[in-house]
Amino acid sequence: MTEVANLHNPVLAATMQQVLDAKTKPQGSLGKLEALAMQLALIQGRMTPQLDAPQMVVFAADHGIAARGVSAYPSDVTWQMVENFLAGGAAVSVLARQHGLALTVVDCGVRHDFAPDGRTRPGLIVAKAALGAADSTQGAAMSRAECDTAMAHGVAIVKSLPGNALLLGEMGIGNTSAAALLMARLTGLPVERCAGRGTGLDDAGLARKLGVLREALARHADAHAPLEVLAALGGLEIATMTGAILQAAQERRVIVVDGFITGAAVLVANTIAPNVLQRCVFAHCSAEAGHALMLQHFGVDALLQLGLRLGEGSGAALAWPLLESACRIMREMASFASAGVSEKAPG
Amino acid sequence: MTEVANLHNPVLAATMQQVLDAKTKPQGSLGKLEALAMQLALIQGRMTPQLDAPQMVVFAADHGIAARGVSAYPSDVTWQMVENFLAGGAAVSVLARQHGLALTVVDCGVRHDFAPDGRTRPGLIVAKAALGAADSTQGAAMSRAECDTAMAHGVAIVKSLPGNALLLGEMGIGNTSAAALLMARLTGLPVERCAGRGTGLDDAGLARKLGVLREALARHADAHAPLEVLAALGGLEIATMTGAILQAAQERRVIVVDGFITGAAVLVANTIAPNVLQRCVFAHCSAEAGHALMLQHFGVDALLQLGLRLGEGSGAALAWPLLESACRIMREMASFASAGVSEKAPG
Repeated sequence: MTEVANLHNPVLAATMQQVLDAKTKPQGSLGKLEALAMQLALIQGRMTPQLDAPQMVVFAADHGIAARGVSAYPSDVTWQMVENFLAGGAAVSVLARQHGLALTVVDCGVRHDFAPDGRTRPGLIVAKAALGAADSTQGAAMSRAECDTAMAHGVAIVKSLPGNALLLGEMGIGNTSAAALLMARLTGLPVERCAGRGTGLDDAGLARKLGVLREALARHADAHAPLEVLAALGGLEIATMTGAILQAAQERRVIVVDGFITGAAVLVANTIAPNVLQRCVFAHCSAEAGHALMLQHFGVDALLQLGLRLGEGSGAALAWPLLESACRIMREMASFASAGVSEKAPG
Repeated sequence: MTEVANLHNPVLAATMQQVLDAKTKPQGSLGKLEALAMQLALIQGRMTPQLDAPQMVVFAADHGIAARGVSAYPSDVTWQMVENFLAGGAAVSVLARQHGLALTVVDCGVRHDFAPDGRTRPGLIVAKAALGAADSTQGAAMSRAECDTAMAHGVAIVKSLPGNALLLGEMGIGNTSAAALLMARLTGLPVERCAGRGTGLDDAGLARKLGVLREALARHADAHAPLEVLAALGGLEIATMTGAILQAAQERRVIVVDGFITGAAVLVANTIAPNVLQRCVFAHCSAEAGHALMLQHFGVDALLQLGLRLGEGSGAALAWPLLESACRIMREMASFASAGVSEKAPG
């Protein structure tokens, strides 16, 4: 499978730290922005990281498990929201436009024909590995062949896109269930700590969802290898995203991770190739119950805490200007010496 | 003194909430961004708030108390950093440029002549109410006349600036001491919970600073009215900023508050005119020790938690795109009805 190199580079890191500390500010006073500048420099292997042609990709698919009442919204919302993305009216459309992010929607397996006469539509890539994932309480969500196809689509899509930064978004009614299942199985954490209210389940809905998730985990008790787990419990958009993440990581693109579902795809990719995480910037900590724990499992700190729980890539888009700021700090900020500013008094 | 009207408007708030809830997203799923959209709408008294010609103003002055060793940096850094702002090399210069914020530096009382031959310099307003504040352990930081002049300067500066949003920044070696003193006296909180390490004091430096702050508080034990407190314990940039905040609030400008020192000016202004707070967006929670407690005293939540402790307005600049996003959500996002997206299933 994919090899993802270790970015460990103590010489570059030490030089970066010196340059950061020589900027006209108390050492460390730009907080997480300094850590972000360091990470971007290590990803790109240069002191002055630069972000070119950032690509927001929203991976969409349907989920058979949605028929079990695990979401507050009907499955039709998946295709309706894809139309909304394409029309420019969704939150991620608005935010991508604000920040100059190219927006591509990938139909990874939505039960809807967006281009019935075979025509192409601007901003849409049709890459259906199947017509929706199956209900994972009844069998595998995807066959291994479907899962492999979805991942290959993700690889090809990233290869076809310009730029050096990939922002991850997703849409799929039922996909917090798939993400919670992947998280529970791959981390070993209890499923009730991984699952949350998704788009807004009430207490009874959450209890029903947990019951369904336990059924699915029991049905696939023997799935443990990451690709087995992905096929059994995941979804088409998560599999496509996993391929995209692995390809982006291999190309040393910066990967901006949105929330809980995109995080689950990173979890799968990083289980396959543990250096993936070095390329990932975690945009925000979501209000979805399992997300804080997922970030803790990764050992990372997210940039934003805004109580978001929308998905789509909205959090990744909102965090984007902070990545730009980190680059500009390195490129444009004066040093004590260059600006003629006195350094900290001794003692 | 200044009258600042109450923005309480339950009809507008209820309509805004309906419009927010009709947008294509689960209710409340944009978290703090929704609360921000609501606040901006109430400030501007319209459903689709819009931000025009945002002004970042950095208020700079020197502090006599700095001679008592309360800062890790020498006082000369104040004027040197003003030159750095004007040259475009400071953090706030870089971030203001990134976000298209007009940047004005106000010399409220720096012990330095930035325009020795009476010339004007682009981006600089010279409005010295005195040549630095005096050491508040020895007497009042400012006379009441100096304090009134500084506040009047702040009023005039805001009147002279275009746009409907004011972003507050500051520079002044020693000014975390002045801010901590104002906070301690105006809130009644113990000074050791208000003061922090500023630009980077070590343990011994922090202990020294606390001793000096206790001296100043004892020296002015009888100062309790807000303007008395401001003159006795504050600083020229804080007084100028207080005037600017009151004027901006009166004009219903959006006021973006940076960190601890700008927060202290808001505290003074809001003690004078309690509806000021309704116009304030708190950009971030700083790593400076007293800031979290100050925000708690205000009963507000900041937008960002990035471990910043630089001041200058850097946090306000970093938060700025979130205000833009809140406006765009209201203006550009589709509703369930307009986009043909199904609403949440009943039950």
